[in-house]
Amino acid sequence: MITTQSQRHCVSHLEAAIDGTKLPAGTIQTLHKGKPLWVRYDLDAVREAVSREDLVEREETMWRYRELLPVARDENIVSLGETMTPLIHCPRLGARLGLRKLFIKDESRLPTGSFKARGMAVAISMAKELGITRVAAPTAGNAGGAMAAYAARAGMESYVFMPSDTPLVNRYEAVLYGAKTFLIDGLINDCGRIVGEGKEPMGWFDMSTLKEPYRIEGKKTMGLELAEQMGWTLPDVILYPTGGGTGLIGMWKAFDELTQIGWLENDNKPRMYACQSSGCAPIVDAFDKGERFADPAKDPHTIASGLRVPVAVGDFMILDAVRESRGKALATDEDKLLDWMREACALEGIALCPEAAACLGVLESALAAGEISHDERIVIFNTGAAQKYIEAMQVEIPTLDHTKPIEWASLG
Amino acid sequence: MITTQSQRHCVSHLEAAIDGTKLPAGTIQTLHKGKPLWVRYDLDAVREAVSREDLVEREETMWRYRELLPVARDENIVSLGETMTPLIHCPRLGARLGLRKLFIKDESRLPTGSFKARGMAVAISMAKELGITRVAAPTAGNAGGAMAAYAARAGMESYVFMPSDTPLVNRYEAVLYGAKTFLIDGLINDCGRIVGEGKEPMGWFDMSTLKEPYRIEGKKTMGLELAEQMGWTLPDVILYPTGGGTGLIGMWKAFDELTQIGWLENDNKPRMYACQSSGCAPIVDAFDKGERFADPAKDPHTIASGLRVPVAVGDFMILDAVRESRGKALATDEDKLLDWMREACALEGIALCPEAAACLGVLESALAAGEISHDERIVIFNTGAAQKYIEAMQVEIPTLDHTKPIEWASLG
Repeated sequence: MITTQSQRHCVSHLEAAIDGTKLPAGTIQTLHKGKPLWVRYDLDAVREAVSREDLVEREETMWRYRELLPVARDENIVSLGETMTPLIHCPRLGARLGLRKLFIKDESRLPTGSFKARGMAVAISMAKELGITRVAAPTAGNAGGAMAAYAARAGMESYVFMPSDTPLVNRYEAVLYGAKTFLIDGLINDCGRIVGEGKEPMGWFDMSTLKEPYRIEGKKTMGLELAEQMGWTLPDVILYPTGGGTGLIGMWKAFDELTQIGWLENDNKPRMYACQSSGCAPIVDAFDKGERFADPAKDPHTIASGLRVPVAVGDFMILDAVRESRGKALATDEDKLLDWMREACALEGIALCPEAAACLGVLESALAAGEISHDERIVIFNTGAAQKYIEAMQVEIPTLDHTKPIEWASLG
Repeated sequence: MITTQSQRHCVSHLEAAIDGTKLPAGTIQTLHKGKPLWVRYDLDAVREAVSREDLVEREETMWRYRELLPVARDENIVSLGETMTPLIHCPRLGARLGLRKLFIKDESRLPTGSFKARGMAVAISMAKELGITRVAAPTAGNAGGAMAAYAARAGMESYVFMPSDTPLVNRYEAVLYGAKTFLIDGLINDCGRIVGEGKEPMGWFDMSTLKEPYRIEGKKTMGLELAEQMGWTLPDVILYPTGGGTGLIGMWKAFDELTQIGWLENDNKPRMYACQSSGCAPIVDAFDKGERFADPAKDPHTIASGLRVPVAVGDFMILDAVRESRGKALATDEDKLLDWMREACALEGIALCPEAAACLGVLESALAAGEISHDERIVIFNTGAAQKYIEAMQVEIPTLDHTKPIEWASLG
């Protein structure tokens, strides 16, 4: 499986998402006119370099799609073993909603227990390739720990800034992975501003969501895996918990690239549902108003920390993908998140996070409205492990006195 | 890959570990003379049914070793997608110890974030096959959540009993997965007694470690995967965090079965190191005294909750395997666990749990004593995700005032 660089590296250039300006790959890039960049590939070269059949002999990790990833040299790949995540059929949860073909793609099974690993694996690999040795990022939840873990693996210095009310597990894991970690009495945007301001005095690279071009390429592998796991077809509907939205944007890009290299069995694309909480729904508001850019969410609050993103720099990329797919942006009532989380965990044994619970609420609404039909093939992304959200799942557990006889009938 | 039952099911009988008594498979079994049972296979039938080459076409999950697992019918397999765990080369942590060939097998990447998933996947599948609908278990850490998750997936009722000071994440996850969960002001053995006493009044099956024959078969897949990942050879040394010890016992059984079916490239077996904490080291005490059975640990205490097992029902099976392998049972100073955990996480980005940290302490001692040499191929098992141990990783994180200019020099 070892090949030379020229066979595997098919990046042609970077392209500004806002106006199509071409920028060179192979040098450090951030934003163009304040907006993100796409990585573009020579897809003819990809088609010549690899076939669907070639994949069968490759390890079941996200790096099996090597030719559709931006790292030029294998030795720059920074990996913690990003095994393909299982696509789990959910008959019991499906029955609850009247569905036979409900699937959860369980991203909690990646390094650091969240989908953030995909983006950071590629972003840190590219940082290494480009000679970066110090990185920083703001985080509202799982991103900070993921960056810290991959930076540790690469031997880089990392700095993480997070709101003081970030979930405890996310706070501790960043420190544990060796990041210099700081709390801010504010929101993720305040943290983002500090990361931006520190670039010059601290000499770090700003790894904020979409402020470097490569996290999206890592997230893209969610879509590549899904297509392969479904026999190179795509589901009818994807429900995706949308904070910064990189995953949704990345998957839509993946489906386009797969179409262009001719790997899909048919032209059917999924309708993409961007799912948010009523506590923080800027993308839903913009979708409802027919806008391409979102106003900042006011007073953002939700137990789904990954959805607490009042300003998404890729707002127009999310909204473009949702509309192009004939999908929707919808919010679930914040008060329902915990119930959906508990119900899914107890029915299927999958550690569903509150962000993914928002997708179940949206799904129920869309089924009731007749927008999604009961015989469609539906995929929800579980973006992180429920175990990382102890604040959300506070429960009282009864204590038994083991020195006295147990009253069995009282156990229920 | 679908075949008939007769081709895939190769169990011949069960065998009492204490005296070799044969017992029939296919019926509910627990202990014999108070001691655990082995599952025995017709290994000639296994050799005929499957070859190493056949595995290449199978999915990279623990079920690829189908013929060496006890489930008779595919439809009884209860799965949450048990993908093969990565075997991660650790050059930076290795350098810290003067090693070039140090590997961590990262079991935190299984469902529920711990190696307990392997055992429970098989035990709950077998419970389903045998018609059991209600299960109960004592737990000191990750086992309860894993049982609850697989029971949920199977649609079974589950009951979990745990000491009041079990880590918070373990307490919450059991509830989240729908288990009826109870705290006990005592130790895991007090919980185990309640589970035993409740069998008749509550009609549940006792899923305690080694009190049913199948968890060990699930844990066995750690050894099967390791062998395959190392090109059907075995490492020189395995360091394994040992509480109940099922994993160590299971791996040693796996290596024996692989030898008998002729899949290993050579006869070299690893030296097995059973690693404990000075706060609870009954197996180490028995090893040092030359005993086959261990005295209960007094005043057991350790941040490595999975090692807080004062009485292991499979003590003699652990000690037999360790001695047969020419390995050792060794304890790390409890006070060093947190430092090793932090160091490994920060050097390699792997979410090393405190149980696995005990292995690093033992490794350092054994290297210093010259028992393990610096050019050997060494594997440590990371049995769970560090993120599940928030009590162990308590840290103070500095807060910055984002409304004032940041003093960059103060960030370090």
